[in-house]
Parts: sequence; C-alpha cells; structure tokens
Amino acid sequence: MQQALQNMRVVDLTQVLAGPYCTMVLGDLGADVIKVEKYPDGDDTRTMRPFVKDESYCYMMVNRNKRGIRLNIKEEAGRAILYDLVKTADVFIENFRPGTTCKLGIDYETLRAVNPGLIYCSISGYGQTGPYSHKGGFDIMAQGLSGIMSMTGEKGGRPVKSGIAIHDIAAGVTALYSILAAYVHKIRTGEGQYIDLSLVDSGLAWTVWEAAAYFGAGEVSGPNGSAHRVSAPYQGFQTKNGHILIGAANQKLWERFCQDVIDRPELLEDPRFITNSDRIRHVDELEAIIREIIIREESQYWLEKLDKAGIPSGPIYRYDETMNDPHIRAREMIIEYEHPAAGPIVNLGFPAKFSKTPGQVRRPAPCLGQHTREVLRELKYSEEAIRELEENQII
Amino acid sequence: MQQALQNMRVVDLTQVLAGPYCTMVLGDLGADVIKVEKYPDGDDTRTMRPFVKDESYCYMMVNRNKRGIRLNIKEEAGRAILYDLVKTADVFIENFRPGTTCKLGIDYETLRAVNPGLIYCSISGYGQTGPYSHKGGFDIMAQGLSGIMSMTGEKGGRPVKSGIAIHDIAAGVTALYSILAAYVHKIRTGEGQYIDLSLVDSGLAWTVWEAAAYFGAGEVSGPNGSAHRVSAPYQGFQTKNGHILIGAANQKLWERFCQDVIDRPELLEDPRFITNSDRIRHVDELEAIIREIIIREESQYWLEKLDKAGIPSGPIYRYDETMNDPHIRAREMIIEYEHPAAGPIVNLGFPAKFSKTPGQVRRPAPCLGQHTREVLRELKYSEEAIRELEENQII
Repeated sequence: MQQALQNMRVVDLTQVLAGPYCTMVLGDLGADVIKVEKYPDGDDTRTMRPFVKDESYCYMMVNRNKRGIRLNIKEEAGRAILYDLVKTADVFIENFRPGTTCKLGIDYETLRAVNPGLIYCSISGYGQTGPYSHKGGFDIMAQGLSGIMSMTGEKGGRPVKSGIAIHDIAAGVTALYSILAAYVHKIRTGEGQYIDLSLVDSGLAWTVWEAAAYFGAGEVSGPNGSAHRVSAPYQGFQTKNGHILIGAANQKLWERFCQDVIDRPELLEDPRFITNSDRIRHVDELEAIIREIIIREESQYWLEKLDKAGIPSGPIYRYDETMNDPHIRAREMIIEYEHPAAGPIVNLGFPAKFSKTPGQVRRPAPCLGQHTREVLRELKYSEEAIRELEENQII
Repeated sequence: MQQALQNMRVVDLTQVLAGPYCTMVLGDLGADVIKVEKYPDGDDTRTMRPFVKDESYCYMMVNRNKRGIRLNIKEEAGRAILYDLVKTADVFIENFRPGTTCKLGIDYETLRAVNPGLIYCSISGYGQTGPYSHKGGFDIMAQGLSGIMSMTGEKGGRPVKSGIAIHDIAAGVTALYSILAAYVHKIRTGEGQYIDLSLVDSGLAWTVWEAAAYFGAGEVSGPNGSAHRVSAPYQGFQTKNGHILIGAANQKLWERFCQDVIDRPELLEDPRFITNSDRIRHVDELEAIIREIIIREESQYWLEKLDKAGIPSGPIYRYDETMNDPHIRAREMIIEYEHPAAGPIVNLGFPAKFSKTPGQVRRPAPCLGQHTREVLRELKYSEEAIRELEENQII
C-alpha cells in the first residue's frame, strides 16, 4: 500500500507529547521517523506510569511508527552521528529550551551547513523570541497565559484546565501542518527553512470566537459551565445515571422540547421564557426547572425522546463509555497491535480516513535503543565502530 | 515573497468554524482559496454578532486570505459553474451532513469524474460511516461523546466544556494536515483521493494521556479542577487580584516553595506532606493551607517570588490580559489590517514562524459575493453570461 509521506525522512529529538504527537502522525502517514533519545535513559515519558511489562503506556501511545536510537549528543562522537543522520533527513524537529541547541551544536545554522535543504522545526513553551522565550513552558502554564483556562469552568467559579493537554497538542499539530507546508516548498524548490513555534501561540491561535467577541465588541469570554453563550436551553443536564447535552437552540426546538420531551407546554406561556433572549436572561431559573425534570429518568430515556423530537442532543460520556461506544468502534478509533516487549497494545486510531493512502501501524513504539545498530549500519558504520561507540557510552 | 502553498488552489464549500479554519491557514500559507457561499445569504456566521459596519467579526476572523463567490448550487447552472471551478482545483472541501453532497450532485464520485486528480475532503460531525453518521453534529455534542467534557471541571463537580470549540478546531487542523499529506502524494503521483474526517474522531485522537491511563491501567480520567493528577502542589490559586498557577512538581521545588516563597518551612516536617505521594494523598488539606496564604497578596508579588525561586509558575489570564501581554504582542500574535467595508480589523496572528515562506495576510475576508465576477471571468464566462446568471439568481 502506498503512503502519502513514504519519501520523507524525519530526525526527531523531541520528547513527551507535543513533538512526539507530530512525528507519530508523520509516521502514521508513511514517513521514516528516527527518534533520537538521550543517553542513557531516553524520553522522559519512559518513566511515566502505567507500565505494561516495564514499558510505559504513555510512551507507547505516541511513539508508534518510529524507529528509536539512543545517542549521547553531549559527546562529539555522538554529535558526529547526528550530523550523519541529518545529512539523510528532510525534517529535523526538537523541543529543547531556547538556547540549548546552540550549546549542543545542533542549532539551525549548524545543521543547515550540514544539509542546506533541511526543514528544521523548533517547539518551545513560549517561542524563540520575545520576553518570556527563556522560560521553560508546560501545557498548563500555556493554558493560563492564553486565557483558555479563564474561559473554562462553572459560571462564576474558578478557572479549570481543559480535560486534555490542549496546548501541547496544539503545538504538535501546528508543527505537523507547518512541516508539511515547508515540505511542499522543499519539493518544489529544494529549499529548507526554519520554523519556530510555541505551545502558547499554537493554542492561542485557536481562540477564534473569543477573539471575535473581544476585538469586535470588547467582550471578555468567561467560564460558562456546559452552557452556550447565546442560546438557551443549550447545555448539559444530569440524568438519573449520567449527564446529557440538550441543544434546543431555536424557537421551534424550544417548543418541541416543552411539548414532546418534557411535557410542560405551560412553559411556552411563561413570560420569562417566551423568546431566546428571555430564556438567556432567565437562564438560571430555566436551568433549575429543567434540571429537576431531567434527573428523574435515565440518559437513554431522554436521548431517545430528544432524538425523536429532532432536538440536537447527546450523551456526556465518561471515557470508558466513549471507548465502548459502537460508533467509536465502527470508526476504527480503537486499534490493537503487538508490541515485542509489552504484548498486545490498544491505541487510538487514525482520525483522517484516506481512500488511497490510509494511515497504518507499520511498527509499534521502539524499546529504548532498539534500532540504534540498524540505523548506524545504514549510515555505513562498521561493526567495530559500533562496538566502540557502545563501549564509550555514546550509543 | 514566496509562499509554501502558492501553487495550490482550493474550492471551499465549508462554513462556520472547522472547515473555514482549515482553509484560512491554507490561504495564510499561500493557497488560492475560493470560498463558495450559498445563495442568497452565504456562510451562517455572517449573521453572528458582533458586527462592525454590518460585517460579522466572527466571519472576518476565519475567512481572511480567501476570495468569496456566491453560488446557487441547487440549480443546474450553478452546479455547472462549480464543476468548471473544480476542474481548476487541487482541493475540494465540504462540511454538509453525510448524504447531502449526493443529492446536490457534488459528491466525490461526481467530482472525480470532472477532475481525477482532485483531493476531496469531507468534514462532518460523526463521519461518513458508522451508526451515528446520519446525525448533525456540533462541537459541544462531540465534546460530550469523546469524553473530553467528563474530564473537564472541578473535582467531583459537573462536566464543563472546554473554553474553546476544541472539536471544531480539531477537525479543522486534522483536515489541514491530511490535505497537505494528500497534496504531497498528488505532487508525486498525480493522484487525488477522498478524505473522510469527523469532529468526534479528530478530538478523540487527542486524548492521548487519558487513553494511556485507560488502556494501560483501566483508569477513567475525571475532572480535576486546575490540578495535576500526579504532582502536588501543581495547580491554580486565587490571589488578591486574579489567579496564578504554581507547579512545584518535585521534592526540590516543594522545599524551595515552602522556604523561599511562602515562608512556611514547618510544612516540610508535616507528616501529611513529606513526599509527593503524601501530598497527593492529602491534596485537599494542602490546597486549603496554600490557598489561605496566596490570596493575601497580588499575582505579581507571587509570580516574582516563584520566578526567583525557579518554580514553574504563571498567570491565569483573563482574555483581555492575554491580548495585552507584552510577550503575546512581541510574538506578533495580534495583527491589524484594513477591511474594505469594516475598516481596521484586529485578528490573531500566525502561530508558526517560517523563515522562508512566512504566513501573510494577502487579503481580508471577502464581502458576500465580492469575487464572483472576478472568478467567473477567470473561468472565461462572458459579461453577458454573468449578467444572465445574476438575473436567474444563480450568483
């Protein structure tokens, strides 16, 4: 089977989540990704629980479709191997704190001299420039700085973080599309280039509606629980056995909701709830009335009634319910394959379904240093040289 | 200045957020994006507030760098124009409910007959296959189904939504990288293909750590406020004038925090807080003690002390604070340009900084039908034909 990126080679010095997510997807789509892990312990996530037969599940989740080598780039002999590798690469990606690559001798200026066509992508917390560039940055600090935390939570309550590491992922997928755009340019012109992106900027660029409210009307979006800001009722409600979402977003749906779902036609005459603006003005009272009704029956009961009435709705699943939903299964969003050390591995599938060049699991995540010898042999290192590098704690 | 995607032409039938975000970034990177809006009223966001001189700020935020035409594709004459346009395109992207493109005669099988090299990308709520594929889907329903809502909120509290439309954006950026990968394949082989992706799958694919906990240990991630699941103290705290994040994630940082930041060295001796596991076990008591201290001074006071002590920390900004932060400004994440109808527009900048092919605003978002005549002329329609199409309410 052909894969879209089968001619691309990536040298990956990232760890944890943002960079590894990016290079995993490049690998899913066919790129030859060589993950270079630090000597002696490798990617920090290798120590993150849970473990299966000593292999970290977190590591295995985001490092499939990569070959792994271990390399001591603090030593000159290790750097020399990295340069040899970079000569063969289209893409180099790293997530050191700004300034570190210069100290290590693996900054863009140095590597472009080795390979002028190289696409070099740096991921950092705050970017390579600007007053905070020197700081180390984590997803949660980025959620705080971008304003996303302050928009998340109960109305009037404390800011809470998004359930997933949204800025880490944002940096990863921004790196993905940027590298691919730069690769298109490289295919056409032979030119490489440098790409600087940060966790903060990548997530901030996604606050599109919130920016429209602020730039267009000076409004600052705050937390609003599970509720829509301009339609009511449009939010989550607790049932007897879980939570569901009800989106009666317009007048017709509101009427059907009162008549066909909750059997409370008198609400349509209530002066507090006549129009959507009325309902938004009295949203707390509206919510209290509906809450007291919805909690009396189970989710399935309400979802069937809502569906029949044509009102947008759906479950608010716990994650284990998501993982067992027949639609999620039918979409092949849960896949299984063998890992040489850990045995059968369950992982998330490919969100994009390509008709000609589908994503594939060609290999599970590597054990630490699993492909060091294989890659060095490809670079024409002799068996003797490899043995010496091992003895000298370079690989 | 060169742009990475300057040879790519995109015909865009999407509206609202997911698709438009995707095609905006393609446009930022140089693609010629022709946005085809429905007759007579165009993209639904054109009616979304706030407005500046009758132009919707929401619309203007995600439709820069596109040309806009208005087209009645329900009529055969309108479809004929669309086919002419598709003949010139590399990429076609739509977000109708599954099945609708067949009824409209613009499904993949029809359009590939017109242009065999076409990359055709469909974005939908639940995807083109599976038991829920027929449903209309919105971001909030996807947040409920994927489990992301159930992981967001206060510990023990109700599920709340992420501050931003995370699944809409997920589908948009998944479309972005998928289209670019397919474009690389097309450059190499001339082949087009079909890409099916959904809001649900795209966001679900980002629940990496949560999937590791579930697949690796059967653990279901629930909401945890602003706190880290395995380190303490690592969370948000209210100050006298706002909220800040404190990430004393290991023993050394905890010691420095007690000694140099809050001046409570006796906490180091408290048997409830000796090790990180102790602190996690007694996290509520720990939080109560720290909360009562942090609230006494302003954010700036604490952030300076934390910074001096080398403890990861940062503000939890309201969005207006984010927009006025000197680092955000220095990173050019806020840009301004002229819109012909609305005047000066402020928008979010480009998260990826390319050295050779930077993102650019070549044009502001189009007024409804602004480029209809220009594009029809490029397709060699005569002035008379264009007049007739207008009279017949096709454009």
